[in-house]
Amino acid sequence: MASHRVVIIGGGFGGLYAAQALAGAPVEVVLLDRRNFHLFQPLLYQVATGGLSPGNIAAPLRLVLKRQRNSRVLLGEVTDFDVNGHRVVMGSEQVPYDSLIVATGSRHHYFGNDAWEPLAPGLKTVEEATDIRRRILLAFEAAELHTSPEARRQYLTFVIIGGGPTGVELAGALSELARDTLRREFRSIDPAEARIVLVEGQDRILGAFPEDLSKKAAQSLAGLQVEVRTSCRVVGLEEGRVKFHCGDEKGEIAAATVLWAAGVRASPLGRVLRDRAGAELDQSGRVIVGPDLSVPGHPEIFVIGDLAHYRHGLKAPLPALATVAMQEGRYVAGLIRKRILGQPVEPFRYRDKGILATIGRSKAVAQLGSLKFSGFLAWFLWLAVHIFYLIEFQNRVLVMIQWAWNYLTRNRGARLITGEKPRE
Amino acid sequence: MASHRVVIIGGGFGGLYAAQALAGAPVEVVLLDRRNFHLFQPLLYQVATGGLSPGNIAAPLRLVLKRQRNSRVLLGEVTDFDVNGHRVVMGSEQVPYDSLIVATGSRHHYFGNDAWEPLAPGLKTVEEATDIRRRILLAFEAAELHTSPEARRQYLTFVIIGGGPTGVELAGALSELARDTLRREFRSIDPAEARIVLVEGQDRILGAFPEDLSKKAAQSLAGLQVEVRTSCRVVGLEEGRVKFHCGDEKGEIAAATVLWAAGVRASPLGRVLRDRAGAELDQSGRVIVGPDLSVPGHPEIFVIGDLAHYRHGLKAPLPALATVAMQEGRYVAGLIRKRILGQPVEPFRYRDKGILATIGRSKAVAQLGSLKFSGFLAWFLWLAVHIFYLIEFQNRVLVMIQWAWNYLTRNRGARLITGEKPRE
Repeated sequence: MASHRVVIIGGGFGGLYAAQALAGAPVEVVLLDRRNFHLFQPLLYQVATGGLSPGNIAAPLRLVLKRQRNSRVLLGEVTDFDVNGHRVVMGSEQVPYDSLIVATGSRHHYFGNDAWEPLAPGLKTVEEATDIRRRILLAFEAAELHTSPEARRQYLTFVIIGGGPTGVELAGALSELARDTLRREFRSIDPAEARIVLVEGQDRILGAFPEDLSKKAAQSLAGLQVEVRTSCRVVGLEEGRVKFHCGDEKGEIAAATVLWAAGVRASPLGRVLRDRAGAELDQSGRVIVGPDLSVPGHPEIFVIGDLAHYRHGLKAPLPALATVAMQEGRYVAGLIRKRILGQPVEPFRYRDKGILATIGRSKAVAQLGSLKFSGFLAWFLWLAVHIFYLIEFQNRVLVMIQWAWNYLTRNRGARLITGEKPRE
Repeated sequence: MASHRVVIIGGGFGGLYAAQALAGAPVEVVLLDRRNFHLFQPLLYQVATGGLSPGNIAAPLRLVLKRQRNSRVLLGEVTDFDVNGHRVVMGSEQVPYDSLIVATGSRHHYFGNDAWEPLAPGLKTVEEATDIRRRILLAFEAAELHTSPEARRQYLTFVIIGGGPTGVELAGALSELARDTLRREFRSIDPAEARIVLVEGQDRILGAFPEDLSKKAAQSLAGLQVEVRTSCRVVGLEEGRVKFHCGDEKGEIAAATVLWAAGVRASPLGRVLRDRAGAELDQSGRVIVGPDLSVPGHPEIFVIGDLAHYRHGLKAPLPALATVAMQEGRYVAGLIRKRILGQPVEPFRYRDKGILATIGRSKAVAQLGSLKFSGFLAWFLWLAVHIFYLIEFQNRVLVMIQWAWNYLTRNRGARLITGEKPRE
């Protein structure tokens, strides 16, 4: 039996890559997650717009780690830590660890307006994606049923709050859904009349990208008839209505469907680490980690991915990207291996592999180091990267086929309105 | 504008085939459904056991009827009929008709024990399939977490009530899930130790098939280590426990997961037709229809599919099969065309195309007229027929690829535990 036990909480990009990077190491790996699958979150917007099924972008954790004999998966929710006893508390169970990797990511954040959540759902889980899909499709159905022009216009108006990659991708896909996929499927309405508004608080969308790529993205969105409103802050949200301030100007849109792609807050386990291990949190609730990604004072506890605030030598903390989480996961796995061998450990260093965002069919923006792309080439790159990283081989093939089909036919087959129990 | 309006309630096999068979006819077709998709119910057991995603076996109704310009789809639930005014009541809307086709199918029936429903869910809707998938997968997860042998045994025991095609297919797929797919994915339990019990009230499973095929099916199930208990009636159901009587013998099984594949009852619109149009119902709530599938006294109202009881010249009413519903749908469409032209109409005649049931990978039983098959040939036939009838072309291709993959790898990728909102 291996004497060193590594407990990893969370089977996202960070946790799963850490677990995989420990394959063959003289350790026992225990991966804890609330869900039984790894979710490829960057494609969740495709589920929300009917292009892919949840099964296409999820891989059972047990399947991914099946052949890694030093690993096991346990399903459950971690609620507390016993940092002195080196134990993780999961319901009534306690799971002992020698090294602990916390990789539980982030959730939406409504900036203190939690009442907005049911009115403007965010896109983080499979259930949220199918809920958004249901809302979008039901809005078109309701527009088809109603005869009053005001009601129709309201049902055909969609507001997306937040102009980061998720908001941009969602807006682009939604526009294509309305203008390509649903074309000719209705008899009373023309889905192409749908109005899609993307609201962003800063003065440009995709703020993490260089300015000229933001501009390209805005042009692409304009080409898809998405209205982009920058420097606009949402100040009120009620059923069917969004209020916002754009500088001194006040605006209001009657929209049946409002989607949230604005803020995120770190997983609540950050606060537990603060209380139990004295970790320091930033204002988004992320744990401020040391140069080796450990919690200061606790060299055996690591925090990676969206939950970690890592800044050493950088102007800003590392962004909440899959590629950051993956590199951090691999780094910590390597560190643990070295520690066991008594070898010296270098601080974590992020290798910037660039950023990518897609804006609908054949359009994207990409920055790779000093190179910038936009248009078809960027989109192709985006496609290649995403398919490459889809963790399980089956998914890569099936998603590629599904996409090829969607691309050629402009169809989206996974357009199921599900989730409401039909009455008897 | 066409002067004759055909309203069809229900987008299952009967309703959708009726709508399609009216393509190009001088009528206006209005298809009403609560759901926005046609569901290929014969493959629902594959969703329940993680082999296919809901999107693989569902086709958006609007997509299927997109190019049929004399048709439209409306989403909503029909609650009543105004048979004198020739109107269908859907919420606050009234939809007028000249001809009406009611094809709303059937639901589970717990023989007066409605309290059993939450304990032993049935398999009719996408939500039920993902709920069953969740229960099955969570049972294995719970067995992995628990250390007591009794608790483990209970979690690894699955009882399926009802030995018709659904029960048999579910039992076979569940056994393969446990013995092939999940093999080596757990560390504390061996999923192959799962005990799967199929309980049937009659003295043989697949009662609609010839006796020797029932025997073959039972042999195949035994080969998959499914315990088949015939002549057993479930008399009690409580959380984690099933009580049954087998003749004079009383039995009890401790099983965490119980699934219902026993009885069905016709859609409640049958009772509304009884109250409004004087229709006669049989004891399952099906509407007893005339030789032309109309409600006696109402030549403009037709009932087809699982909701119809058609017996003329037959020893028993036609069974609740997709092929029956499809033939009835086409027949009524043809009848309406002929009526409009003033041509004479023949009574409906069912062409028996045989019956098929699959029992896991490469095994099935089939009867085609006087021919009987079992084993691989029957399975291949089953596969060909099912893929052929998957209504939308995209699904055929993708399901075939998914299946080929599953067949070769014994894998089931759509094993997502979804539906419970994860807590913050």
